[in-house]
Amino acid sequence: MAEQQVEKMASLDVNSESTDSKDEDFVDPWNVQSSSATGVDYAKLIERFGCTAIDQVLIDRIKSVTGKDPHWFLTRGIFFSHREMHKILNLYEQKKPFYLYTGRGPSSEAMHVGHLIPFLFTKWLQETFDVPLVIQMTDDEKYLWKDITMEEVRRVALENVKDIISLGFDMEKTFIFCDFDYVGQCPEFYRTIVKIQKHVTFNQVKGIFGFGNSDSIGKIAFPAVQAAPSFSSSFPLIFNGKKDVPCLIPCAIDQDPYFRMTRDVAPRIDFQKPALMHSVFFPALQGANSKMSASEPNSSIFLTDTPKQIKDKINKYAFSGGQATVEEHREKGGNCDVDISFQYLKFFLEDDERLEKIRQDYTSGELLTGYLKKDLIAVLQKLIADIQAKRKTVTDDIAKAFMTPRKLKCDF
Amino acid sequence: MAEQQVEKMASLDVNSESTDSKDEDFVDPWNVQSSSATGVDYAKLIERFGCTAIDQVLIDRIKSVTGKDPHWFLTRGIFFSHREMHKILNLYEQKKPFYLYTGRGPSSEAMHVGHLIPFLFTKWLQETFDVPLVIQMTDDEKYLWKDITMEEVRRVALENVKDIISLGFDMEKTFIFCDFDYVGQCPEFYRTIVKIQKHVTFNQVKGIFGFGNSDSIGKIAFPAVQAAPSFSSSFPLIFNGKKDVPCLIPCAIDQDPYFRMTRDVAPRIDFQKPALMHSVFFPALQGANSKMSASEPNSSIFLTDTPKQIKDKINKYAFSGGQATVEEHREKGGNCDVDISFQYLKFFLEDDERLEKIRQDYTSGELLTGYLKKDLIAVLQKLIADIQAKRKTVTDDIAKAFMTPRKLKCDF
Repeated sequence: MAEQQVEKMASLDVNSESTDSKDEDFVDPWNVQSSSATGVDYAKLIERFGCTAIDQVLIDRIKSVTGKDPHWFLTRGIFFSHREMHKILNLYEQKKPFYLYTGRGPSSEAMHVGHLIPFLFTKWLQETFDVPLVIQMTDDEKYLWKDITMEEVRRVALENVKDIISLGFDMEKTFIFCDFDYVGQCPEFYRTIVKIQKHVTFNQVKGIFGFGNSDSIGKIAFPAVQAAPSFSSSFPLIFNGKKDVPCLIPCAIDQDPYFRMTRDVAPRIDFQKPALMHSVFFPALQGANSKMSASEPNSSIFLTDTPKQIKDKINKYAFSGGQATVEEHREKGGNCDVDISFQYLKFFLEDDERLEKIRQDYTSGELLTGYLKKDLIAVLQKLIADIQAKRKTVTDDIAKAFMTPRKLKCDF
Repeated sequence: MAEQQVEKMASLDVNSESTDSKDEDFVDPWNVQSSSATGVDYAKLIERFGCTAIDQVLIDRIKSVTGKDPHWFLTRGIFFSHREMHKILNLYEQKKPFYLYTGRGPSSEAMHVGHLIPFLFTKWLQETFDVPLVIQMTDDEKYLWKDITMEEVRRVALENVKDIISLGFDMEKTFIFCDFDYVGQCPEFYRTIVKIQKHVTFNQVKGIFGFGNSDSIGKIAFPAVQAAPSFSSSFPLIFNGKKDVPCLIPCAIDQDPYFRMTRDVAPRIDFQKPALMHSVFFPALQGANSKMSASEPNSSIFLTDTPKQIKDKINKYAFSGGQATVEEHREKGGNCDVDISFQYLKFFLEDDERLEKIRQDYTSGELLTGYLKKDLIAVLQKLIADIQAKRKTVTDDIAKAFMTPRKLKCDF
């Protein structure tokens, strides 16, 4: 029995399964490596991770069930994969409750536009389904993984919380928490963590996350902390003590290992498996196979960037899918799949028709990269300016209100 | 540097160091094995654990510094080993503060008399040095190690807390906490735990505690939870936020592995190493090489035993150091080192002169085991009756008062 368990869990280690590892992308919560200019092969990733592609059937069903147009992140394949999303839609149809859970590891003061993707989509989900949302700031994780003091990681976390609030979440239905605070505010959260920790072995986290013997016991135990908010038992004030309210987790696909583990352990501790929706990775300005890093200011556009910085960075660094000369470009056309301006527009330009027109005209060679850059600069300058304006109104008191454990405006 | 650390910590694994392991006792927090009828060889244990014998010099100094007679647990070698107790006495002489920390893993509803030893001594230390005391109930540990529900372990913990309170601790200077509650009441406790967890690797806990790859991540991370109360940062309400108040831990020697780890990690996280005083093991009624178990009611005297049960169990089960016949006994005398009645009297008969007289008369053959049993029955019947009487007055409210995180009557 125990051995079977280990066998089964070992198969959750999807990175090591590959027989031709040189050709495969590597994806775990701390590293994403792809040698291709178009980035990670998501079809392969779906197969290896054992999740399900978000297909037209699912998108249509979301539309018919909610009566609302699906977010462009869905129609454009930015959220491309899921686990048990149909179960969530069944619940919604039956007017049964569920909740949303997403999070962030607050490693850097300035969030970049790529960090916004799961939050923007989560906000849309919350508005569309009208459900409570919990947002976990894993300050403990960042403290454990980085050479950073506890004070500094907590300071950064609060800055990130304010950024997230600036995206416009509904305070009455959103609880944001830092682990270093909330574990110490809610005994049920710690109890849920320990319940998970009792049912996961070192072999299992070794297989899933690649931990080794010289990793700290903090890292080894941490996956249970990220798993715990998937269970409504972690939020007695919100769910009125109910331990079986199902959860939907929108997140980037690199976080899936945590939730494969969570889904594996759930039935063994009499909890519901969380459903998931996965997003693709957000590429660095320098291209999809370049590493985007918060410590490298030129690798992305940050929420703190000025309009001029946005313009200069895009003009200077955004990898072009265009040809070497104008003549060649007019003849052969641009490559949208690798052109970062086009890729970013796919994330942030809401207008489907306009995006399609750009795609066609860039591919045909009619439009030069410069035009795409100009469009992107305008889109991002507006997005960032709006967030910055909102950010100025987010006081310490507002952040504190979002972070106070409390009943939300949802009945359970 | 990292490698050196691993090297150094590996040497904390004292059980595997022995070259002639068949002759050696095995001692860790979950198993104590000795093949000798006189029990564990404590001199060897001191050498292997790297602690220091409590000698006459230390006992005399405790007396001169405090102006009080040393507890018989000290003069009779029941607390036999220490780490840095002289440092604690220096602090006391300089009127500088320190605090006491001890604990219990609440695995069984009924505590037996052996469980009282660290608490009785801790009570004496608290009264003698007039210092605050924290008592940790590791309900999380027992949940992780045993096949027991969280609800059951919490219920048992509360019963044990009431037993401990019945020993007469000063509510104004004593904070008792269950991990499953306190972690969720005090963010600083969790932060201290994670700080420790960041600085201890799996290799280290593997070496110290013998954990393997199929152990749960809860077990692997737990040592930090038992280590954390050694640091005053875990109790901001008691120590007014001070993180450097030194700690003295009275405990049975089998708990030393936790605190070897704690003392190793302390300087790396800018905390004070705790001092320790270690007690010998309390033998089972059936003899020092027999296993005492809370699930075997005849292996010891429990706080819930009736006077008749105490009498019957001692008469029937207490291992005798006497000879096979009265004639042989009169001639050869009894063996105090293995006679359990004498051993128990050494723990619980306060009168030094009387104990010495019994020792002489039993050794000479003048006294038979029956006399020692009669004496022991009377001593334990009184001890248990007193505790039971006190126990009846310990209401839920009193337990709750002891367990409420609060300022104690000590200025920091």
